Amino acid sequence: MSSPAEIAAFLAREFPQTKCTVEAVGNRSSTVRHEVGVAELRPGGTVAGPVLMAVADVALYVAILGEIGIVPLTVTTSLNINFLRKPSAEAAIVGVCRLLKLGKSLAVGEVSLYSEGDAEPVAHVVGTYSIPQSARASTK
Amino acid sequence: MSSPAEIAAFLAREFPQTKCTVEAVGNRSSTVRHEVGVAELRPGGTVAGPVLMAVADVALYVAILGEIGIVPLTVTTSLNINFLRKPSAEAAIVGVCRLLKLGKSLAVGEVSLYSEGDAEPVAHVVGTYSIPQSARASTK
Amino acid sequence: MSSPAEIAAFLAREFPQTKCTVEAVGNRSSTVRHEVGVAELRPGGTVAGPVLMAVADVALYVAILGEIGIVPLTVTTSLNINFLRKPSAEAAIVGVCRLLKLGKSLAVGEVSLYSEGDAEPVAHVVGTYSIPQSARASTK
Amino acid sequence: MSSPAEIAAFLAREFPQTKCTVEAVGNRSSTVRHEVGVAELRPGGTVAGPVLMAVADVALYVAILGEIGIVPLTVTTSLNINFLRKPSAEAAIVGVCRLLKLGKSLAVGEVSLYSEGDAEPVAHVVGTYSIPQSARASTK
Repeated sequence: MSSPAEIAAFLAREFPQTKCTVEAVGNRSSTVRHEVGVAELRPGGTVAGPVLMAVADVALYVAILGEIGIVPLTVTTSLNINFLRKPSAEAAIVGVCRLLKLGKSLAVGEVSLYSEGDAEPVAHVVGTYSIPQSARASTK
Repeated sequence: MSSPAEIAAFLAREFPQTKCTVEAVGNRSSTVRHEVGVAELRPGGTVAGPVLMAVADVALYVAILGEIGIVPLTVTTSLNINFLRKPSAEAAIVGVCRLLKLGKSLAVGEVSLYSEGDAEPVAHVVGTYSIPQSARASTK
Repeated sequence: MSSPAEIAAFLAREFPQTKCTVEAVGNRSSTVRHEVGVAELRPGGTVAGPVLMAVADVALYVAILGEIGIVPLTVTTSLNINFLRKPSAEAAIVGVCRLLKLGKSLAVGEVSLYSEGDAEPVAHVVGTYSIPQSARASTK
Repeated sequence: MSSPAEIAAFLAREFPQTKCTVEAVGNRSSTVRHEVGVAELRPGGTVAGPVLMAVADVALYVAILGEIGIVPLTVTTSLNINFLRKPSAEAAIVGVCRLLKLGKSLAVGEVSLYSEGDAEPVAHVVGTYSIPQSARASTK
């Protein structure tokens, strides 16, 4: 398992573009947060869909790393997102991830995405990740 | 229906962040292209997943606008992506979209994403879009 | 809203093939149950995938009807299933549904599927449903 | 690789419930067919959704077996279906599958489902399959 600090350092190295911060990790779950500013908005004040997808992707990755340790070659194999409500233009996006399965070679998790401070999700994601065999061996 | 120039102008206004260019549109399909540079890469030379999702989203949107005209309130309701192969760090991403359904209130399409110059897709997307009733009425 | 008895009668009429029983409904959720016998098994003792999809479909439908009333024209527009663990050949399948969104024209929900008596899900489903405008009007 | 006759024999053994017949297989693709009768219909004359999912599942499985040989432990890991049009009550369902990826441990394919004789698809499916390592080794 990895500590939140180890995961944050890993994210900064592996995902240099992401502005996500890790709020919590452990117990097959994670919470991440992404500030919303001009770069994330579309005209009309909607957070761009790809921003939501990126937050979910990081939340899933963080939850997996929290269980199996720092495994750089873990890659997303699929991601399914449903957009549920218009996100607020004035709130950060918060992603809350829960792993549904953590197998030897495949992990599956779901992420509910929120506009911070609102109880109803703005989007829901299910993602699957492939875990390289060699990497898992080295974390035992 | 909208001309490629109208759609390009609309994209520049509605998606100011996107770097996608519209290569072709019409006949229930579209081709879009996104340059790959440092901002799109992750360490190891992989194009970031959210970039692929964003290109697919634009390709779907463009194909729909090509049929129903400029309808700003059309919104993505779901997007399912499968990552198939590692994209090249040195080639643009090309998205080729084909609409599967164009109903009164819902459109569904698929997008194959390629590293330019390679015949095997790097990812495959199916997306659904909600078309506002009022907007459709006004395009008749 | 519909009572469990009304929904059971509706299911028997609309889905004559289903063996699902409604265990609970209300509060934007539902629980349904499907016995597992020879007809549901594949060699090796796995519950066939389409049986799991059918149970999830009914669970979503029941949860929606519990909120909007008996609306026969409500139809599934998409369903995404992830298979997580091998189901038991000796336990019924239980589907627990929670609606994520109940809009005017679209409902989205998730279903966790279990082998009865086991706490870990065997599959997870996200489904979307189209609600006809006229039908909704008549339920007000 | 497997012959159509070998695959048909395998299907009869592994999927004793299926009524699908294999029309074509090879070249990373397959075509399967499923008769539609009273058992497949819902009131109003719609083919039940789970029947469509089952046909797609078999089409994907057949296309994969056509490439890698008879590998019983190959299992569906995810399936995403979009329902596009109301199927005919009087036509068989035909599923046309094309593999998008055939990796060492994961295969991904898409299936267009038709009411026989109609050019517009009634549904579209993307599915992923896990290929056991040992089984692949034995097919080399």
